[in-house]
Amino acid sequence: MWRLMNNFDHRLYKLSRQKLQSLARRRMPHMRTSVVRRQSTQQGESTWISGENEKPQRQLRWGIAPINILAEDFVTATTTLPPEKHRITACMGTYRSQALEFADRYKVPNVFTSFEDLARCPDVDAVYISPLNCMHCELCHLMLNHDKHVLCEQPLCMAEQQVVQLVTKAKARGLFLMEGVWSRCLPSYEYMRSEIAKSKLGVVYDVRCRLGWELPNAQTSSSAYAGVTRNWAADCIQLALWIYQEVPMFVRVDGKLNDAGVDIIAEIELSFRNNRRAVLELSAEKNLANMATIRGTKDCIIMNNFWSPTLLFFNNREVEFKLPTTECKTYFDSRVGMCYEIEEARKCILNGRTESKLFNHSESQLMVNLIDQITDMMAVKDKHVKVQRVAAIQ
Amino acid sequence: MWRLMNNFDHRLYKLSRQKLQSLARRRMPHMRTSVVRRQSTQQGESTWISGENEKPQRQLRWGIAPINILAEDFVTATTTLPPEKHRITACMGTYRSQALEFADRYKVPNVFTSFEDLARCPDVDAVYISPLNCMHCELCHLMLNHDKHVLCEQPLCMAEQQVVQLVTKAKARGLFLMEGVWSRCLPSYEYMRSEIAKSKLGVVYDVRCRLGWELPNAQTSSSAYAGVTRNWAADCIQLALWIYQEVPMFVRVDGKLNDAGVDIIAEIELSFRNNRRAVLELSAEKNLANMATIRGTKDCIIMNNFWSPTLLFFNNREVEFKLPTTECKTYFDSRVGMCYEIEEARKCILNGRTESKLFNHSESQLMVNLIDQITDMMAVKDKHVKVQRVAAIQ
Repeated sequence: MWRLMNNFDHRLYKLSRQKLQSLARRRMPHMRTSVVRRQSTQQGESTWISGENEKPQRQLRWGIAPINILAEDFVTATTTLPPEKHRITACMGTYRSQALEFADRYKVPNVFTSFEDLARCPDVDAVYISPLNCMHCELCHLMLNHDKHVLCEQPLCMAEQQVVQLVTKAKARGLFLMEGVWSRCLPSYEYMRSEIAKSKLGVVYDVRCRLGWELPNAQTSSSAYAGVTRNWAADCIQLALWIYQEVPMFVRVDGKLNDAGVDIIAEIELSFRNNRRAVLELSAEKNLANMATIRGTKDCIIMNNFWSPTLLFFNNREVEFKLPTTECKTYFDSRVGMCYEIEEARKCILNGRTESKLFNHSESQLMVNLIDQITDMMAVKDKHVKVQRVAAIQ
Repeated sequence: MWRLMNNFDHRLYKLSRQKLQSLARRRMPHMRTSVVRRQSTQQGESTWISGENEKPQRQLRWGIAPINILAEDFVTATTTLPPEKHRITACMGTYRSQALEFADRYKVPNVFTSFEDLARCPDVDAVYISPLNCMHCELCHLMLNHDKHVLCEQPLCMAEQQVVQLVTKAKARGLFLMEGVWSRCLPSYEYMRSEIAKSKLGVVYDVRCRLGWELPNAQTSSSAYAGVTRNWAADCIQLALWIYQEVPMFVRVDGKLNDAGVDIIAEIELSFRNNRRAVLELSAEKNLANMATIRGTKDCIIMNNFWSPTLLFFNNREVEFKLPTTECKTYFDSRVGMCYEIEEARKCILNGRTESKLFNHSESQLMVNLIDQITDMMAVKDKHVKVQRVAAIQ
C-alpha cells in the first residue's frame, strides 16, 4: 500500500495530468475522437471551462450500459441539469422490448441490445456503466477501446491490477474515467472540506461511520449476499480518505461471518499519521444510526446519511443541504445527488481531463487495495472476485 | 377454457398438423431455410424418420440463448446423446468474457453477445431458450423470425394470447416450437401411459401430487418470489393432463398468500368428466413428500420425484428407470433427463413437424390459461405477468 502514497499526493497528481493532456493532444489527429474532444482541441481548452453563465455550453451525450434501476436513477438525476449540458442519446438492454420501453420513457434516440453496438455508436461521448460488479472492468475496457469516456459505478474493478490496466488505457487514450463515488461531488462534502481546510475543526483526529441495516437474507448461506465489506465499506472508506487526504498506515479488522463465510459484521479501523484514525462499523444484522462524526481538537461535524448528507450539525448549528427536486422519485434514497457527479464528469471531459480530482484514479486503486486487504484479513470467502480474461477484452 | 377442448383433441391435432405441413412445403422455396429443413423437402420426409440404426443421421445444430445454469444442464444432457445427432454450435451471453468462457468450456464455435446476432447465425438450426420467464415470448418471436426452430423453457408465455400468436407464427413458417415440459419425454412417462392405455389401472379416477420445500425467503415480502403456482403448478398440471388427456371441467383453488400477496401454499383441484379428479398440493412453507399417486379402479401407481421419476411402485413391484450418466453433475437434480426432450425435438424437426405430440401447442395454451385462472382465483398480486410489446417484436 505504501507505494500508493506517492501517487495519492495531490501535487504529483497535477503533474501527471499535465503530462497526459499533452500526450492526448499529440494523439488527437490520429484518433477517432468524439465531437466534444475534437472541438476542444481545435478551439483551445480555455474556452471549454464551463461556468454557469458561459456560452456556448457543450452538451455531453450519454450512453446507458445497461438499463436497470441504477440507470433510471442516473437519468432522473440528469433531469435536474440543463438539457443543453447533458443528454441521454443511447441505451443498451439485452432484451429488445425492455430497451425500447426504457428508450420510449426517457426519449432516448439510439437503442441497442449489445454492449458492443453501444460502444460503436458515434452519438455517444460518455457511457454510464452500472451492471454486475464483476463485469465493470470488462465494460470499461470495451467503452475505452471505442473512445468513449466512462463513468462507472463502484467498484471500478475487483482487483488492483485491473484498475492499473484500466487507468493506463484511459490515460493513454486521453479519455475520462471515473469510479462513481458520487458523494464526493456533493456540495455538502465541498463545504466540509473547506471548513476543515480553514481549521474550523482544529486538527481532525477521529472519523467514525456507522452503517447498518437488518437484512433478513444476510445470515443465510445464500451466495446472493456479497458481505458488508464489499457492499458498504467503500462508502465509509471514501469519507475517511476524503477527510484525511492520505493513505492509511495500518488497517485493523474484526467482524463476524455467516454460514457461507461471508462477513455480516465488520469493524474496521484505519490508522493515519500522528495518531489519527477512522473507525468504520458495518452490520447486516441490525439497524445502526447511519451517521458519521468527524472530530477535531476544536469542534465536531455530525452528519446524517453520510453518503449523501442533507444535514450537518456543526459549530452549534444545523447546516442544511437540499438536494434538487425531480418529478419522479429515485429508486434509491437521495440518489438524485448524482447530478453533481454527472456535471463534474462533464466539466472534466470538456477540460480534457482523464480523471476527476474529486475521486481520482489513485483513489480507485487504493480503494480496491483496501477492500481486498480487509476481506483477506477477515478470511471472507469471496465468491465475487473473479479474474477477468483481460486478454480477451483488450 | 371450453373452446380449447376441440383443439386439445388428438384427432383434430393430427388434421391440423397435416394441413400445416403442406403449407410449410408450399412456402419452402421462398424461405430462408436451414440445411436440415431444406434437405428434408428435397429428399422426402420418409428418409428423415430417425431410428436408432438408421443412416444418415442428421445432426441438429443448437444455439444457446442465453448462457446460464439451465443452459449448462442442457449442454450436459446433450453429452449423453450421439454427437452426430446433436451439436452446440452457438451461444449467447451479454458479457463477452462470460460468453467466451462458456464457449471454451463446451467447445462452442460461435459466440455472440446479442440475441439478434445469434438469431442471424446460419450455423444454428434450433435454439434453446431459458432466460427470464417474462422474456420467453419475445425471444421465441425473434428466433422464429429468423427461421430457427425453438425449444423454450416453461412457461412459453405469460398470457394466453401470446401463446396463440407464437404458435400461429411457428405454424405459418413451418418451424418447430415446443415448451420445455421435458418430463413428458421421459421413458417412465411413456411406460405409464402405455400401462394406462392397456387398462392395467382400470379407470383412473384420482391423481394426487404433493410438491413442497421449505423456502426461507418465500414468506417475506420479497418480490423475488413468484409464488408456488407460477413456480411449480405446471409440473403437477402437466402430469394430470397427461394422465386424463382432456381439458378439466372445473378448477377449485384454496391457499395462503404471504405479506406481498404472493401464494406460498396452494391446493388446486382439477375436475374431469365422470367424477375423475386431480388434487395438487403445493407449499413453500414445508417439505412435502414430492411424490405423485395415480389411482385407478384396479391398481395404483406411486412415483418419486414425479417431474423425473426413477422409481414407479406399481402392480406390487418396483419399476426402475435409470437416467443416463454424465461426467459432470447437472445443477438441477435429474435434469440430465432433458436428453429425451432434446432428441424428441430433433425427431420432430427432421420429420417437418411444428409441434411435438408429447407436449403440443394446445397444451401450452391450456397451461397458461389454467395458471392464469388459478392465480386470479387466489387473488395473487402477480408482478411477473407483463404484457409484452408484441408490435415491437414481430
